[in-house]
Amino acid sequence: MVKKPAPDTARRSEKSRRAIYDAAIALVVEVGYPKTTIEGIAARAGVGKQTIYRWWSSKAEVLMDAFLDLSEQAAQEATAGGDPYAFPDTGDLAADLKTVLRATVDELKNPRFEAPSRALAAEGVVNEQLGRAFLTRLLEPSLQLYVERLRSAQDAGQVRRDVDPRIALELFVSPLAQRWLQYTGPISYEYTDTLVDYALNGIAPR
Amino acid sequence: MVKKPAPDTARRSEKSRRAIYDAAIALVVEVGYPKTTIEGIAARAGVGKQTIYRWWSSKAEVLMDAFLDLSEQAAQEATAGGDPYAFPDTGDLAADLKTVLRATVDELKNPRFEAPSRALAAEGVVNEQLGRAFLTRLLEPSLQLYVERLRSAQDAGQVRRDVDPRIALELFVSPLAQRWLQYTGPISYEYTDTLVDYALNGIAPR
Repeated sequence: MVKKPAPDTARRSEKSRRAIYDAAIALVVEVGYPKTTIEGIAARAGVGKQTIYRWWSSKAEVLMDAFLDLSEQAAQEATAGGDPYAFPDTGDLAADLKTVLRATVDELKNPRFEAPSRALAAEGVVNEQLGRAFLTRLLEPSLQLYVERLRSAQDAGQVRRDVDPRIALELFVSPLAQRWLQYTGPISYEYTDTLVDYALNGIAPR
Repeated sequence: MVKKPAPDTARRSEKSRRAIYDAAIALVVEVGYPKTTIEGIAARAGVGKQTIYRWWSSKAEVLMDAFLDLSEQAAQEATAGGDPYAFPDTGDLAADLKTVLRATVDELKNPRFEAPSRALAAEGVVNEQLGRAFLTRLLEPSLQLYVERLRSAQDAGQVRRDVDPRIALELFVSPLAQRWLQYTGPISYEYTDTLVDYALNGIAPR
């Protein structure tokens, strides 16, 4: 059993953790991933290197935790304090998908979130190990919420049984991701609403 | 009127241009975009800096031309010597889209093409100016071929009139792009064929 720290220690730890996250995020935005170091993060956070190594074993891990923490904040802002991990299931699949994608639009346009997520996403493109860690810890959990919602829509007869939800979700999620990553077009609610309509109904005449 | 260079000069120029492209591509893969310099490219290509400045005004321009040249080679290999700029129009929209996407799968898996395109795509994520240049010169021309093919399908009554082809194309193209950029899943012919079927027919019951 782990001994619970005294309230003072816990408060100090929480303050250091916050300072380390802020420093890590600021550094990766300013100098990029390759030049961000544990030493640099420690100096900027005003803590000893050992404090960081007590909790994390590499800069990738610090950054991933810092970024997860930031994403949670951005998701909470985008859902106006709602639970960002709950995917709505009102019975109206199109409406639910549009709601979630609109929140993602807000998150992607959040200036506090944009620069660090670009820095990490860019490094993930050329650094497969980091890219896969980013996927496992950040992307895949959100994608799984789509899978679950699409499965529930299959049970309700709103999505064909022969459709693979893990692929189908990419019809709405990936176009938005590519517009954000590669500037292939503007990002708006109208755009994500259109993606949902095209994907659900297809573009061929019915 | 520009004087045509003597055959010898033209041959020497072509050889220098090729050496510069090869050096630029090799460097961006090895040290990344930020550390690639005109000086470095010149030294590696065995030419003077002035030779490069005679033809290009920045490293972004050299790299873009080098990469365009490489993409053309990769596209030609993927289409087995066919014209990579011609989008098939056999009258069967699904078949034509599948053909083109299968060629893109081959291109993305071409090892000579993968590392440089990752290096440039990664930089484009954090460097909006380069990202937009990359889009204008490399991505958008291919996307326009999809737009034209989808318009022809609209004329033939195979795609609804109210569908915006510039958005619709993203249903097939972006999922593949995101799998490649962010390792969100494996890339295969079966996968791209499935995307085409889902996008044309929708995932809701008909």
